[in-house]
Amino acid sequence: MRLVVPVSGSDPKTRLSPVLTPDERREFTEAMLADVLRALRGAGHSPEVVATASVACDAPVTVDERGLDSLINALLAETGELAVVMADLPLLTPPTVEGLFEPDADVVLAPGTGGGTNAFVSRHPDFRVDYHGASILDHRDIARELGANVTEVDSRRLATDIDEPEDLAEVLLHSDGAAGDWLRNAGFELVVDDGRVTAERA
Amino acid sequence: MRLVVPVSGSDPKTRLSPVLTPDERREFTEAMLADVLRALRGAGHSPEVVATASVACDAPVTVDERGLDSLINALLAETGELAVVMADLPLLTPPTVEGLFEPDADVVLAPGTGGGTNAFVSRHPDFRVDYHGASILDHRDIARELGANVTEVDSRRLATDIDEPEDLAEVLLHSDGAAGDWLRNAGFELVVDDGRVTAERA
Repeated sequence: MRLVVPVSGSDPKTRLSPVLTPDERREFTEAMLADVLRALRGAGHSPEVVATASVACDAPVTVDERGLDSLINALLAETGELAVVMADLPLLTPPTVEGLFEPDADVVLAPGTGGGTNAFVSRHPDFRVDYHGASILDHRDIARELGANVTEVDSRRLATDIDEPEDLAEVLLHSDGAAGDWLRNAGFELVVDDGRVTAERA
Repeated sequence: MRLVVPVSGSDPKTRLSPVLTPDERREFTEAMLADVLRALRGAGHSPEVVATASVACDAPVTVDERGLDSLINALLAETGELAVVMADLPLLTPPTVEGLFEPDADVVLAPGTGGGTNAFVSRHPDFRVDYHGASILDHRDIARELGANVTEVDSRRLATDIDEPEDLAEVLLHSDGAAGDWLRNAGFELVVDDGRVTAERA
């Protein structure tokens, strides 16, 4: 099955602007992508990257400026079967990826914290995506309206997408991959304050 | 194996004070506890509740005013083997609970978002807890220093503890149990705003 990793290449991870410069956001995005690609390969897949602008990574990259919905829906229409895994999931491991492909269902959804859909596997020719808003709700509805057999995987590593400064602590807590190394080299460390753990720059 | 669910019975979930009255916090705490107990029973366990003050629930309750560390460490010293699952995990399901008990390891840890430890199973007589700060780091260290075989489960449902108003959206998105019903009856609904999903009261 074709496995695509979409990446924003032009001005990635804008919500990290309060703590990272534009160059740093690009470097950190590429570090997270490297972790995702390694986990996917470790589970036996051959991922392709589709980016809105060129990105440095160890996989075939297609530059495509369409929005995420148009892009993924064109691929779904073209291929019939498709897996999509987001690029900002640096906690992914090969067993987690295996868990995504394991259920024998037409559509397998991996919810993200906050209502997103961080990955899916579709074996139904008519499944389509809508990433706006609480996309996990839309994707459940789309799959059900097709009469597709739909299931969800229960994975913290798939649920943990890194969008905002408060998400960085998860990387420091749970990653020994490229993204964790990048943050540590950039001077970030865990700070425990009043029961909350944050990543702060020394 | 003995399975304990610790609950704060006196003034529970104070971080939800901005959106819930004291009576509502108690009711919501008991709804989440009901969901946790049902999931544990559904996986074949007989959970016991240990609370700092009496709580309404369908399980044996022991009132014990000791702090969490003292309480759990006394039980660990007494029993040798122990499982602890927090009471604020309303997304738990029987398969998720089975996943916690499945690994053949001395110590199985379930990390919470933000560095907590939302559940554990210990089969090592000398394992002890320290819930302050980023407890998942401490628990990894404690287990390793004992030479115990330690593993972590990858579960979003076990990672999602409900502490703050922003966590309530996860309940509305993913629970059809007592906690989700309680929130909906109390007038909470999902609001999608600028890519973020929140639970707000109508």
